[in-house]
Order: sequence, then structure tokens, then C-alpha cells
Amino acid sequence: MIPYTAPVDDLRFVLNEVVGLETIAALPNCDSAAPDLVDAVLEEAGKFASGVLAPLNRVGDKEGSVLENGVVRTPTGWKEAYGQFTESGWNSLPFEPEYGGQGLPWTVAFAVNEMWQAANLSFGLCPLLTQGAVDLLTEHASAEQKALYLPKMIAGEWNGTMNLTEPQAGSDLAAVRTRAVRAEDGTYRITGQKIFITYGEHDLTDNIVHLVLARLPDAPPGIKGISLFIVPKFLPNEDGTPGERNDLRCASLEHKLGIMASPTAVMAFGDNGGAIGFLVGQENRGIEYMFTMMNNARLGVGIQGVAIAERAYQQARDYAKSRVQSKDLADPKGSGVAIIRHPDVRRMLLDMRAKTEAARALALYAGTQLDISRHHEDAAARAAATARVDILTPIVKAWSTDIGCDVASTGVQIHGGMGFIEETGAAQHYRDARITPIYEGTNGIHANDLTFRKTGRDGGESARTFIAEMRTTVAELESIPGDDVEAIRTNLSAGLDALEQAVAWVVKTQADGDLRAAAAGAVNYLKLWGTVAGGWMLARSAAKALEGLRQPGANAPFLEAKLVTARFYAEQILAQGPGLLLPILTAHRTVMALSEDQF
Amino acid sequence: MIPYTAPVDDLRFVLNEVVGLETIAALPNCDSAAPDLVDAVLEEAGKFASGVLAPLNRVGDKEGSVLENGVVRTPTGWKEAYGQFTESGWNSLPFEPEYGGQGLPWTVAFAVNEMWQAANLSFGLCPLLTQGAVDLLTEHASAEQKALYLPKMIAGEWNGTMNLTEPQAGSDLAAVRTRAVRAEDGTYRITGQKIFITYGEHDLTDNIVHLVLARLPDAPPGIKGISLFIVPKFLPNEDGTPGERNDLRCASLEHKLGIMASPTAVMAFGDNGGAIGFLVGQENRGIEYMFTMMNNARLGVGIQGVAIAERAYQQARDYAKSRVQSKDLADPKGSGVAIIRHPDVRRMLLDMRAKTEAARALALYAGTQLDISRHHEDAAARAAATARVDILTPIVKAWSTDIGCDVASTGVQIHGGMGFIEETGAAQHYRDARITPIYEGTNGIHANDLTFRKTGRDGGESARTFIAEMRTTVAELESIPGDDVEAIRTNLSAGLDALEQAVAWVVKTQADGDLRAAAAGAVNYLKLWGTVAGGWMLARSAAKALEGLRQPGANAPFLEAKLVTARFYAEQILAQGPGLLLPILTAHRTVMALSEDQF
Repeated sequence: MIPYTAPVDDLRFVLNEVVGLETIAALPNCDSAAPDLVDAVLEEAGKFASGVLAPLNRVGDKEGSVLENGVVRTPTGWKEAYGQFTESGWNSLPFEPEYGGQGLPWTVAFAVNEMWQAANLSFGLCPLLTQGAVDLLTEHASAEQKALYLPKMIAGEWNGTMNLTEPQAGSDLAAVRTRAVRAEDGTYRITGQKIFITYGEHDLTDNIVHLVLARLPDAPPGIKGISLFIVPKFLPNEDGTPGERNDLRCASLEHKLGIMASPTAVMAFGDNGGAIGFLVGQENRGIEYMFTMMNNARLGVGIQGVAIAERAYQQARDYAKSRVQSKDLADPKGSGVAIIRHPDVRRMLLDMRAKTEAARALALYAGTQLDISRHHEDAAARAAATARVDILTPIVKAWSTDIGCDVASTGVQIHGGMGFIEETGAAQHYRDARITPIYEGTNGIHANDLTFRKTGRDGGESARTFIAEMRTTVAELESIPGDDVEAIRTNLSAGLDALEQAVAWVVKTQADGDLRAAAAGAVNYLKLWGTVAGGWMLARSAAKALEGLRQPGANAPFLEAKLVTARFYAEQILAQGPGLLLPILTAHRTVMALSEDQF
Repeated sequence: MIPYTAPVDDLRFVLNEVVGLETIAALPNCDSAAPDLVDAVLEEAGKFASGVLAPLNRVGDKEGSVLENGVVRTPTGWKEAYGQFTESGWNSLPFEPEYGGQGLPWTVAFAVNEMWQAANLSFGLCPLLTQGAVDLLTEHASAEQKALYLPKMIAGEWNGTMNLTEPQAGSDLAAVRTRAVRAEDGTYRITGQKIFITYGEHDLTDNIVHLVLARLPDAPPGIKGISLFIVPKFLPNEDGTPGERNDLRCASLEHKLGIMASPTAVMAFGDNGGAIGFLVGQENRGIEYMFTMMNNARLGVGIQGVAIAERAYQQARDYAKSRVQSKDLADPKGSGVAIIRHPDVRRMLLDMRAKTEAARALALYAGTQLDISRHHEDAAARAAATARVDILTPIVKAWSTDIGCDVASTGVQIHGGMGFIEETGAAQHYRDARITPIYEGTNGIHANDLTFRKTGRDGGESARTFIAEMRTTVAELESIPGDDVEAIRTNLSAGLDALEQAVAWVVKTQADGDLRAAAAGAVNYLKLWGTVAGGWMLARSAAKALEGLRQPGANAPFLEAKLVTARFYAEQILAQGPGLLLPILTAHRTVMALSEDQF
């Protein structure tokens, strides 16, 4: 078994010292975020992740989920683990107490979610998507629908799915063709095929609540003609028990590169006249509602990037400490040493660690902004936090998942030849991670979202406000002596300068109507944002670490490591940020210059 | 079936216009490199690669090679394809006519080798390793050994393997424990276990010539006590037919992330008293001889990086031209368009293409230097070319294989969700490519080789000579008008400035005895070298493309594309080169700063 230990120390440090958990706990209805309560949650969740979920990660990869006679069987031990997961209440953490939730702020839920995803990405997807579905229904469903579905879904007895994609409708949801027809009883009949439906069929829960996008016969064309339906696998009886089987089935499961245990279903709706669907909200507003779920899931997928990076780091670190190979450069007469003594191995480990910690802190910071946007008493504070979440969502999704892939690949490299052997487990992370830059919107789509909706639409105002706030950290660091802080400060400052120029350029191209120019540089624009914002997080960590080191009884090894990691990030990663500016500004000169035939 | 078309136009352009095939053809014993002959070879090889090898790539991945009762069965169709490959003479291309080779220069063999590897990486490994073994025996074996083995191996009737690795001896060959004992008849008895033996057992050839590193009982410790043996699967009779079975067997095959069809064997030597081995050269000089094979194989693996990148590019390009999704940004009222119309997809395609073309040109340039080092009449010219090959070998190996992984990953991304589905085939490239930065020396080992042996040992002289030569291209570009060339020139110049500083730093740290500091920056140092040298190649391509465009009857679409690709590389990739300087110079400040416990 490949061990996993939840990074409770770092989560606690980021929550308490960097992103301000106390402020969150002081918000209305957020008293469950009191630091001592959160500590207990993190400890317990860590135990569950290490003890129950992590051991099932490899068996999940080997066995996969299998479709037989219309029934999907999850791997050995998964049903039991899911039962323990829901019985322990882990599924209900961030939801409203009114429907059985525990009301924990998203900041804390994000921290815990990282553990599930790190321990077992395939497993973690099931509650992750249910979370998104619960969020959607909480916001947009009728009181009756909420009463019927939310308690079951929050308890984890039923899971939720997102039925968006069709063969011709991937990134382009306007192309959805699944049909919905009004029935006389006020329900709808759904007919069509959906693909890539995560946990679309399985044996973990008593019922599956499919949220399905479909088009009414008289709907306007395009994305403004799509409606959203609840299409349960079993139609609930009035007492809330699963009743008659609905007219839907899993037609097949995909044969994938990774996340083998997470069943990716082709779903067929309405083979026998139409699946019964219940409209959510109003007709033709489905895309708008679905964005509630997608925004939640996007941040969740960003956290998957952090999680797989952490898992890959831990495994590579353990290997590097135990694998003896070659002599120490500083002791050429000595005997063989553990490879962690070799500078390049150590550089790889620090690279993995620095990126993971930066991405983690940024995701948790996004969590605080989400909580503030929902709970703060002051409308202006809520609006400011909403703007910040808006800008952070594509960054957390795309930058963190690119990091997940990158770090998982470095993890394979540290293992040398053993990394290529499946039994080692490093290759599984490399395969599993690869879906995260694709699903919940490809990272290219998110780069466009950041460029157009999140930067261009308000003329760059939210972006500049964020940059100005990051500059206050640069100013604060000026008063702290020492070459570590100086290295961090100068590289952060240079990164912010580059980012400011990039924002100005992105705004200008859009003002000039040159959308293609903005789009051509979008991915590097997002990468620059992530690199700088991640550097900002670690700069704040460094300042807090230095402060902590002056306290009696400080955990010096941990705090020194935070400082070194922040400096490593500044000099090795953030320092490369300004190099992205020219690519952003010049992409338009070549990207559209060739005809299609020239490719 | 996923099609592959050999990039004959680009290969021809690089050979004739960029790396100077004519100069190679003018060398003694190299008249088979006459451009019209080479044209014919490229065309025929391209047909074989597309028509015979490419169709077997997917079946190879699905079926894999399988061990049953000690016998390894390659996938359906492979034995027939290998038969056609050898019958058509493809195996014998670069070898000495004295033993049945066709005497083609390595420059041309590299070009052809790219096709085999692109069409089918798992297949291509077999002749690639045989090439290395032939090279080794040609250089170091006795006349009798050559007469017995070379004709068979050059014809491809027997293949060659490298038996280096043992569980405790990966990068560190000094730790080899396999034993060799002198027998009275002048042969040796070999006992021990080797792992990761590519094509160590299979059904493609009549015999397998294992080249095995082993240690004599009275050998000095360390790498100067290792000898090299020929240990054939079947002991050859005097007439050259395979005779008695030797005491060696395939104990198991590894379950790998990729290259499923290439059998990776655990080899057991001497279960019944010792396998019969024949010493190559002198005792205790095995590592030195093995480097002949490794250097050949390293360039070959670098070409695998180019090859997998080309294959992934072609597949992503075809998908991008056929997959319709979303509207054109420039035509928001229109209907859905092929995704190649979207700027970010096009940016990804150009990124894949620019990196592939740069790495290809650099590998072929290394081929010319190898040929000059072997065939030039002037000893000084041979020495200069040898120095250039020495510096290029780690760069071609490591930089190109990193590009292979990077480009294969982008290929998955362009496919969106379909990229994660195995049937699509993009994921296979992503899996297959991942071994290339690991085998034949991890890329970290090559970075150290470049830093210490190839830069430090001569005080940076070879490095500076190479940089000075690249600067002449900058000077030449100054006289060419136009903003394309200006963008290329300024970025190349800036890259060379950074490289020069990096070289000075690498030399200085070693002069100061600070080996760890040099090693900590080694991987980024190699990346900077590759980025700049690749940019140099494309800068030369751009100049030649402009020259070509002025000729009547020029292939304008091709040449314009070369120019745009070179500019894209300069502004998007080469422009990021100088950003690596600070990471190189500062790595030592943090990389060794933590204790092992702090990880």
C-alpha cells in the first residue's frame, strides 16, 4: 500500500496564518469555523483519508469500475468505504443545517476535500459532484424539490451527476440536442444520449440524481434554449424512498487513461418513451443554473490538482529518502547515499512542494472569498469577495490542475525506471491527473473566461484591484530584513509589474475589438496570474513564518521550511513569470498567420 | 487506424538547407548521402513507416508483449512486420558495408530513425538498441567476434540488448553485482539478475545478443571493475547458425505505463551454473565500451522524443481540423467551426510544431557532427566535431524527450475529453513518451553530464566555441530586413547572452569546487541550452526559407510556414529562455537548505 498522510500542519498554517480562518469564523453562521473545531475536523478527516480511502486507490486503478448487464460494479471495498464515509458525516460538511448539513464554511470544506482527492481521486469525484449538485438545487430548486432531494443528497444516500456533454456538444453547450417534452402532469419526458457522465451509474448509493440539460421543442436556438431537469434513476416516492425505475440506463463505460474506478458513463435517456424529468426553475434557463454547479465543481477540480500534487510529492519524497544510488557529490570517497542527497532530486522535490503549497494556499484563499461573498453582513464586502472569487475560479481550476500534471510527472521522474512500472503507483498519479485540465471546462476555456469575462468585461477593474492588494504585501515585506525576504519581495514585485502590463494589454485588445489577439495569449495570461498569485500566497507565508519563528515554542523546522520553500518558489518559479509577458503580447503575430492547409 | 505521414518535406529541408547534407555527402565514404539518393530513401522509409509500422502501434498497445512458459509473444502482426523490415534492408542502413551494412551516414539514419519511432515507438526500440550494440561491437570486439555477430545483427536476424541495470544499480553502474568467472576455455560464466532489459526476450529474431556488464571476482571495486560480455541466447555454431541454448532466461516482463509492446524483461543469467559469456576487449573496461553503445542510444532516444512529438502533432492537427465546436471569435453570428479556428487551439498546435521542428533540426545537426567526427580527413575538424557531439548528446537526449512528453500532453489537451479515452490514441503517446526522459540515463543525469563533463571539464571552451558559432547567425540575420527576422534575431541574441552567463557561472562554481551549486542548476542549464540551440536551428531555417521564397517555383506555403514557425518559437519559447538564468544562478541558495527531515 502506498501511504498518504494528510498535510494537516500545512493546512492549519495556511488556514490560520495566511488566509485568515478567524475572519471567516467571525462571519454570521460560520462559528463552526472556530480554529479548535477546525483542528479536530482536519485531524479526523486526515485519519479517514489515510486509513480508509488511500488504501483503495490502487485497487481502484487495477480493478476499475465494470459494467455488467446494465449494472456498474465499483472495485472491491469501495461500497463499504462509501458507507463509512457517509455514516461518518463527511458528505454533509459544507451544507445547510436545514437539510441535514453541518454548515461548515467552504474554506474548511476545501481543506478537507483536498484530503479525499489526494487519498483517492476516483473516489473523491463522487462526493465532489454531489456537492455541486446540492449547491445547484439549494440555489435554484423549488421548496418541494429541495425537501425531497437535499436531505438524501447531503447525507450521501443519493449522489448527484452533471449531464451536460453530448458527442457534438462538449465545450459548446449550445449544441445540446437532448430533447425534453412537456407532459400533461407538469413533468417532462427526456430523450437523448449524454456522454462522459461521471458516476452516472454505480453501486454506491440507493439512487442517482441526474441533473440533465435538454432542449424543449419550442425553445430558442443556442444556449438560451436549454433547460435543466432533475432526472432521478429511481423516481422518489412521496416518503422519499426510491420508487419506480426511470427510463434511463448506462449504455457503456469509457476505457480511460486514468481515474479507472470512477465510472464514466454513456447515459441513454428515454429508450422506452422518455425518462421522467422534473424542471428546475424556469424553462430555458438551464445553462445559467448549471453554472452554479460548474463554478463549485471548478474550484473542486482545482483542488484535485493540489491534491494529486501533494500525493505525488509524498510518494516521491518517501522514495527519494529510501532509494540508495550513487555517492554524495560532497563526499566522493563515501558510499552510496539516498537520492534525496543529490541536488537535482532535491530540486525536483522542492519544485513539487513549492508549487503544491502555492496552489493549496490560493485555493483556500478562494474558499475564504467564497464564504465572505455568501455570509458577510456588508453588501459591498460581499460584492468585492464575489469579484475576487470570479477572477480566482479560472485560475484555481486551470493553474492548479496544470500543476497537478506537472508535479505528478516530476514524481515519476524521481522514481527513475521504477516510475514507469505500474506497481510503483507513481504512474497512476500521472494518468489520473491528466483529466483535470480537461474536465469542468478545458484549461483553454478557463483562460478565455479569465481574459474576457473576468478581465475584459469590467475594463480590468477587478484585476487591478487584486493586483493593488498584492502590492501591499510587497510594501509590507520592505520592512522585514534578510535576504530571503528580499529575494521573495523583488521577484513578487517584478511579477506584479508584468501582470499589470498583461492586464492593460488584455483590456486594450478587447477595447480595440481584437478578440483573437487576446485569446491567443490567454493561456499564458492565466499562467502568469497563477504564478504571481501563488507567489503572493507564499510571500505572505514567509512573512508569517518569520513572525512565528520569533515566538517561544515555535515549530522551527516547519516554519523554516515554509521560508525556504517560499524563497525557492520566488527564485525558481515566480522569477520565470515576467518571461511570459512577451509571449502574451506577441502571440497574435503568429498564431493566426498560417492557413489551415499549412498545418 | 491512426494515420502517420512521415514529415519528408521538413526532413528534406532540414537536411539540405539547414544542416548541410551536401557537406556530409562530400566526406570520404559518405557518397551514399547524395541528396537524390537520400530523397529516395526518405520516400521509401516514409512509406514503410506509414504503411507497415504505424498500423501496428495501437494493436501493440492493446495486446502488449506477453510472457508464457518462458516464451515472449509479440503482438499480432509484429513478427511479419519485423520480417519485412529486415528483408527491405532497413536494419542495415548506417552500418559498414564490410559486414553487410549500407554505409549511410548517421545524419540520414537519424532522419529515417525518426520515422520508425514516430510510427511505432515500441517497435522502433528493437532496431534502435541493435544499432547501439552493432556500434559497440564494431568499435571494441575482436575480429572473430565481429565476423560472427555483426553480419547477423546488421541484417537484423539477431537483435542486440543492453544488460546494465540491476535492482540496486540503476543510474549507479558502479553497484553492478552480476558475477563473471573465468572458465578454462577462455570464456566466462555469468550469473546474476538484470532488470529493465528492453527486448531481452521476444519472438522477432532467431537469436538475441545480450551485452552484459558483470564483475570478475578479483576486479577492483567501483566502475573500473566491470567487464563487458557477449552472452547470446543461443550459442552460435561456427557456421553462424544459432546453436545450443545458453543458461539464461526471461524471468518476467514488467507491467508498464507505456510502450506495452516492447518487452521489458527481468533476465536471469546462470540458473544452471552460469551463462557462457565472451569477453569484449579487455577485462574491467566494460563501462568504457558500454559508453559507445550508450552514446548512440542516447541520441537515438532523443530522436524518439522528436518522433513522438511529431506523431502527437499530426494526430492533434487532424482532430483540430475535423472537430467542430463553438463559433469563430471573429464571426460570432456564424455557425460552429472546426476547433483549429480557435486561437488557443492554434497556439497549441504551433507550440507542438515549433518545438518538434527545433528538436528535429538539432538532432539532425548532431548527426552531421557525428559523421564529421568519424569521416572528415582533417584531424582538427574531427576533433571539433567530436567536441560538438559531446555537448549535443545530453541536450538532444534530455531536451528532446522533455519536448516529446510536453507535446504529447498538449496533444491530449487538444482532443479535450476524447483525449482521455484510450481508443482515441492520443493518450498512448502521452504514456509511451514518458519513458524517454528516464531511460538511457535520466534527464537529470544528462544535465549533470552537460554541466560537469561537457562544460566544466574543459573550462567552458567547447561551450563558448559553440556559442560563438551561434552568434555568427545573429550577425547574418542583421542584414536581412523584415520584422519576422528581427523578432527572431533579438530573441536569439538575448538567449545567447543568457547562455553565456550561465556557462560562465557553471565554470566558475566548478573552479570554486562548489559542485552542488552547479548540480542544483543543471536541469535548467540544459533546458536553456536546448531552448537556445533549438532557436538557433529555427533561425537558420527562417533565413533559408526567406532565401528559398525568392527562388522561382518555390514551395511558398511550406517556406512561409517555416518562417512563421520560427518566429513563433522565438517569441513564445526562446523568449522564455533568459528567464531560466536566475533559476540557474540561485538554485544553490535553497536546494540544499533543508534537512532531510524537513521534507
